[in-house]
Amino acid sequence: MTTSPAVRPTTSVLAGVDSPADLRALPRDRLASLAEEIRLFLVDRVSRAGGHLGPNLGVVELTIALHRVFDSPSDRIVFDTGHQAYVHKILTGRRAGFGRLRQGGGLSGYPSRSESDHDAVENSHASTALSYADGLARGFALRGQSHRRVVAVVGDGALTGGMGWEALNNLGTDDAAPVIVVLNDNGRSYAPTRGGLARHLAELRRAAGDRHSGPNLFQDLGLAYLGPVDGHDVDAVEAALRRAAALGCPVVVHCVTVKGQGYAPAETDEADRLHAVGVVDPRTGRPTSVSPRDWTSVFAERIVDIGRRRPEVVAITAAMLRPTGLLGFSREFPDRVFDVGIAEQHAVTSAAGLAMAGLHPVVAVYATFLNRAFDQVLMDVALHRLPVTFVLDRAGVTGPDGASHHGVWDLSLLAAVPGLRVAVPRDAARLATLLDAATATDTGPTALRFPKGAVGADIPAVAEVDGIDVLRTARDARVLLTGLGPLARVCLEAAELLARHDIGATVVDPLWAVPLNPCLPRMAAAHELTVTVEDNVETGGFGARLAHQAAASPRPGRVRTVSLPHAFLPHDSRDALLARAGLDARSIVRTVLTSLRPGTADLRGTAVQTHDRLHPLRSARRTARS
Amino acid sequence: MTTSPAVRPTTSVLAGVDSPADLRALPRDRLASLAEEIRLFLVDRVSRAGGHLGPNLGVVELTIALHRVFDSPSDRIVFDTGHQAYVHKILTGRRAGFGRLRQGGGLSGYPSRSESDHDAVENSHASTALSYADGLARGFALRGQSHRRVVAVVGDGALTGGMGWEALNNLGTDDAAPVIVVLNDNGRSYAPTRGGLARHLAELRRAAGDRHSGPNLFQDLGLAYLGPVDGHDVDAVEAALRRAAALGCPVVVHCVTVKGQGYAPAETDEADRLHAVGVVDPRTGRPTSVSPRDWTSVFAERIVDIGRRRPEVVAITAAMLRPTGLLGFSREFPDRVFDVGIAEQHAVTSAAGLAMAGLHPVVAVYATFLNRAFDQVLMDVALHRLPVTFVLDRAGVTGPDGASHHGVWDLSLLAAVPGLRVAVPRDAARLATLLDAATATDTGPTALRFPKGAVGADIPAVAEVDGIDVLRTARDARVLLTGLGPLARVCLEAAELLARHDIGATVVDPLWAVPLNPCLPRMAAAHELTVTVEDNVETGGFGARLAHQAAASPRPGRVRTVSLPHAFLPHDSRDALLARAGLDARSIVRTVLTSLRPGTADLRGTAVQTHDRLHPLRSARRTARS
Repeated sequence: MTTSPAVRPTTSVLAGVDSPADLRALPRDRLASLAEEIRLFLVDRVSRAGGHLGPNLGVVELTIALHRVFDSPSDRIVFDTGHQAYVHKILTGRRAGFGRLRQGGGLSGYPSRSESDHDAVENSHASTALSYADGLARGFALRGQSHRRVVAVVGDGALTGGMGWEALNNLGTDDAAPVIVVLNDNGRSYAPTRGGLARHLAELRRAAGDRHSGPNLFQDLGLAYLGPVDGHDVDAVEAALRRAAALGCPVVVHCVTVKGQGYAPAETDEADRLHAVGVVDPRTGRPTSVSPRDWTSVFAERIVDIGRRRPEVVAITAAMLRPTGLLGFSREFPDRVFDVGIAEQHAVTSAAGLAMAGLHPVVAVYATFLNRAFDQVLMDVALHRLPVTFVLDRAGVTGPDGASHHGVWDLSLLAAVPGLRVAVPRDAARLATLLDAATATDTGPTALRFPKGAVGADIPAVAEVDGIDVLRTARDARVLLTGLGPLARVCLEAAELLARHDIGATVVDPLWAVPLNPCLPRMAAAHELTVTVEDNVETGGFGARLAHQAAASPRPGRVRTVSLPHAFLPHDSRDALLARAGLDARSIVRTVLTSLRPGTADLRGTAVQTHDRLHPLRSARRTARS
Repeated sequence: MTTSPAVRPTTSVLAGVDSPADLRALPRDRLASLAEEIRLFLVDRVSRAGGHLGPNLGVVELTIALHRVFDSPSDRIVFDTGHQAYVHKILTGRRAGFGRLRQGGGLSGYPSRSESDHDAVENSHASTALSYADGLARGFALRGQSHRRVVAVVGDGALTGGMGWEALNNLGTDDAAPVIVVLNDNGRSYAPTRGGLARHLAELRRAAGDRHSGPNLFQDLGLAYLGPVDGHDVDAVEAALRRAAALGCPVVVHCVTVKGQGYAPAETDEADRLHAVGVVDPRTGRPTSVSPRDWTSVFAERIVDIGRRRPEVVAITAAMLRPTGLLGFSREFPDRVFDVGIAEQHAVTSAAGLAMAGLHPVVAVYATFLNRAFDQVLMDVALHRLPVTFVLDRAGVTGPDGASHHGVWDLSLLAAVPGLRVAVPRDAARLATLLDAATATDTGPTALRFPKGAVGADIPAVAEVDGIDVLRTARDARVLLTGLGPLARVCLEAAELLARHDIGATVVDPLWAVPLNPCLPRMAAAHELTVTVEDNVETGGFGARLAHQAAASPRPGRVRTVSLPHAFLPHDSRDALLARAGLDARSIVRTVLTSLRPGTADLRGTAVQTHDRLHPLRSARRTARS
């Protein structure tokens, strides 16, 4: 509870709204109070738990209007990106869950089908909603359920993503189903929206719709257009939505909103309107504690340093200048940074073009979002052997943002790209040297990945062997622990614990996940057991490639790979998720002890026994087949 | 040589043009003759070698004009997709190379930097050119080379791809570099272009540009617009390009062309205007020989049969209805097929929406193009456990279309997607049963991959063991050969050859590449050596996953994985490329013999010896590091 009068919850109206039906039953003159109570509730709860604040404060009236006009879940409301669905959650009976927002087992920060039938889409990647909606609406039509209406709520920032265009083009076909596109135009993604679309929308806002000379862009594509509408006027939005639903054709309802509306600390934050916050003081919107130095800030410092030394280095971001640590670089080198909008594909291929012109682009992106541009990394950058550096922040388990924010596929994808190298720094010092090495390369692309969170103290190497950092040695080591990046620290802890069991362990950090250091299989062969630890999925990961190589050798060594399960991970703290997947020191020790225990211990020397009963070809039923 | 008067080469003008400088030196009154000679040359050469005919016939005058106005290679001309670059090749000194068009070591069917400095971009995936051009132009500006002009030649079909939109949005920023976008509008990709954009372009063609009421879509986005221009009038195109270059800002030059222009068999082919042909009779444009039954036609038959039995099955194509085998399905079920344009991302996510509405979508796509939609497969389909079937044609080595058409990453990518299964049929019968199984599944997504080319006779199984087809057994088999899909046939050939060396080999086909059949590691352990054969890259592939699992077992079996090299493969015949990578029967035999030869043969029983000199930690230099 806070004592600030600004955030004192008065729940007289809100307390009675536990479903869209309750909302629809409310007299119209209570809606303004409801909106105010929802804002107070949002500030109160999000300031305690952390989460997306600005986007949700901006859609309070919009979401009220949506649930008054449409009959969810029979009608489908798809929230693009999904971080603006808190109000939707409040109005669909999940108010109580906000006490455990974004905590393990608690309320998700995004729509979640296991929470509610009102949630259709769980993916938090931008620009997808119109495509889902197109499919849903066509599907309902085919199945004789045309009465079910489909609404996509999409931000102006998300429309800079190419998927949005692909869907608009399809919604413009003559036989398109009547999707209602609610364009939540706050003029921003994190920062102000970039490009020609943003200027066009600004013109439409100024011209108040029908006074715009000639058809606008949406009409050119064949969609109807209603607006602009004041997105904070429930009555106006309701009226527009009812009109849109009555049209019976694809239509854009252009709602103008203010990110952070009604909360002064957000409204006055020019960087990103308190887009996402940790635990903050509700009166000021400022963090209540000082965060330890994190990976992003180390990158932010180093890229400025590199920018000073290397005039050919330029930086690219897909609408995330500050979150990816490029703000300092952009201030010192404003001509050398490009914000391309939420457009990872263009980010990568325009980087290819910049590299062809003789520059060295650094594409700074969250690991999970690079999945959007795999084909461009492969075909536009790597096929042309271009010097581009990909800096993947939020790689590995990220934590409270859940399934679609974990960056746990990048190692697998990038390892399959010919000529691309992948560095994984374990600490700030290695981030500096590896980023330096990457940006000094002019023969092909490099990627560098690091996680969300605190970077911790530097971990010195005790030796270096053919490019591999040896972090710990032991007399008569039986076990080789190979920790990728920040997992090297966990391997050191595990080695300490193993010493108490009288098991000697060598700990190494290969620094480069791709290519596999040819010395590693030899190191592995010199130990009884090798354990690799990485926070990436197993398939195509670092451990899998080492194990594969080990299996091909004439003297197959025993390799246990510790990695993430073949599953979508839920939201929880990074540490909790890592421990659950066996990537903490105690779990690694258990893995070692299980592998070395009598009966399975000395395996490489075990003579092969013929187990006729294990021979599947002899024991199996034989079936004549054609 | 052909005797048809329609294709008789008369090379009087063309013979003197070996460079853009020669072209610019030509008197204007010779250009019509040059264009006619180029057309005759194209029909003559492409009818012998096979290749892209319709697209190149449509850009003869356009390309002449480009090379007269711009000074390549100082100015950069980027051809989107690249299959329309034959005329560009002819005009840049590569006329002679057309005798070996698309043959191994011969002229590439796409731009190729190793062929000429006039070629900038080798990727043949659509919608990338504007992004390259944006990067190139910004890069030239930063490096003080603003005199170098950048031109992107893009089709109207490619503009339906989201990347094109992302780039247009960036070209509409206030500080954008002056890219010249040449819109080659023939109203088609293969088939007529779909969606709202196509209708808008048709309006612009009808309204003759400045008579269109109000700003058009490109102007709304902030680009200048010139046109429409008759793309077959060299003078008109030249004039428009000079005017565009003089503007000094991003501009779209809207050129209207006819795919297949000047060649009656193409002009009258409504399906795709002879987009790409094999060896054809130049008088008719028809194939000179009957092709054997191919994989695509088997799929085409089966999906119609499934469509009859399963009303919930719908089909989606990204502008490739005929090439992916959906033409028959679309004729029988016109309401159940959706052509979304060259928009793989939307194809996948609209499929997710259709599945949420209770249908079972089949997304038919070339394997290489699914890379465009990895994130959508992962986050939009798999995260939601939706019943969608992906049918990947042209999987594996495709042949003469070269590096960016080979579909050799799909197994690696899809294996990393939780809950997605991947089937790989070895013949027509298996394609039928596996496609049936996939479309009958309602608990999650399935992919099914098959290659380009002839399907061959069915290969019966001699037994079935826990879902694995046993194709051949041998008394005291030492070797287990596991061939994925059509490579099973190659494994059978290899087994025959091995029998001559008195080496018994079991041959199995697991049918499913993902998930790994748990019986396989047991089968592998029961043989001295296991060899896996697949036409996919090694990392994350089928063999790698089996080897990985084998290495983790207490009794590591020896696994050799035969797969494609970690490289971009050139153009050549499929058989030649497979043989070069070791995926033919003789190479597999060599792999087996090398692995089994004395000294390396019986490895699983070999006791571990301590090789101190091999222990890298003991022999390596130790360096004090911080």
